[in-house]
Amino acid sequence: MRILGVDPGSHATGFGSIERVAGRFVHRCHGVLRPPAGASIAARLHYLHTELLAVSRAEAPDAVVVERVFLAANPRSALILGQARGAVLASLGEAGVKVVELSARQVKKSVTGTGAAGKSQVQAMVTRLLALAEVPAADAADALALALTYAQAGPLADLPMSTRRRSSRQAMTRLVMERLP
Amino acid sequence: MRILGVDPGSHATGFGSIERVAGRFVHRCHGVLRPPAGASIAARLHYLHTELLAVSRAEAPDAVVVERVFLAANPRSALILGQARGAVLASLGEAGVKVVELSARQVKKSVTGTGAAGKSQVQAMVTRLLALAEVPAADAADALALALTYAQAGPLADLPMSTRRRSSRQAMTRLVMERLP
Repeated sequence: MRILGVDPGSHATGFGSIERVAGRFVHRCHGVLRPPAGASIAARLHYLHTELLAVSRAEAPDAVVVERVFLAANPRSALILGQARGAVLASLGEAGVKVVELSARQVKKSVTGTGAAGKSQVQAMVTRLLALAEVPAADAADALALALTYAQAGPLADLPMSTRRRSSRQAMTRLVMERLP
Repeated sequence: MRILGVDPGSHATGFGSIERVAGRFVHRCHGVLRPPAGASIAARLHYLHTELLAVSRAEAPDAVVVERVFLAANPRSALILGQARGAVLASLGEAGVKVVELSARQVKKSVTGTGAAGKSQVQAMVTRLLALAEVPAADAADALALALTYAQAGPLADLPMSTRRRSSRQAMTRLVMERLP
């Protein structure tokens, strides 16, 4: 099983791919797509679409996990984030891959044990869980954390917290801890 | 000169193309893209991207006019609209066409004489201005109105109202009226 995580953003879109090898998940690749700063919005979104389509096709994941949007943002930032998500999701539709969404809170909780974890905590835990030689950039770490959470919780991760049984959540957290080196 | 108007929306994206022939603008085509209702969001945005890329390439316009977003919308609707715009703008970036934005208010003002015009007024005026045999659907009429406004006002239409001289606005309105059959 191969899983690609994507954290869409207009300035930086993180991606990270992991794969199950001999019963555990190993790192395949990660990166951050940064559209050319001086380009038009159409050119920037085209860049995101094209680059992520290339990544999706090269990785051919069984599932792509995209961060679910936290809706407390104001309309302007929601619109700008929506545009980046639109280019990203259209490319995933073109690649024909399965797309699931997880909230940042679910991912932080699963990877670090607390839904209120900061970026550096997520970066540190992703580095440990995947035994990386270097700490990935924050956006790439978020993408790898999305993939890890889905990899470990499976279809359960796609459900709202309230509809899951407490035991399932505990099992998910335990799974994460067991994979620590 | 050929101009394509696009009114992005998640359920319906209108488009309309016009061209200058012998000193006046004539209708080339219009339509409404409706992503398959039961499909995933990625598949729906991919549909928008692909279809609009095909239209942009077939029409090869000198400029594409997209409706500027009115930001009083709430974060959820801004996000959903942003996603549709993201897929649309990425396809325009891929087609390599020039993209300009006009506000709905500017367009209504230019086409009907009042920025507070309703959808049926825009539909009626677009039908008259382009001498159409049938009244286009509201989303397609909005797209044709975007194209007409840019066609008649040119680069001036791309400026905020407040930075234009009153005489320019009056000239634009007069131009519209002169094209009435």
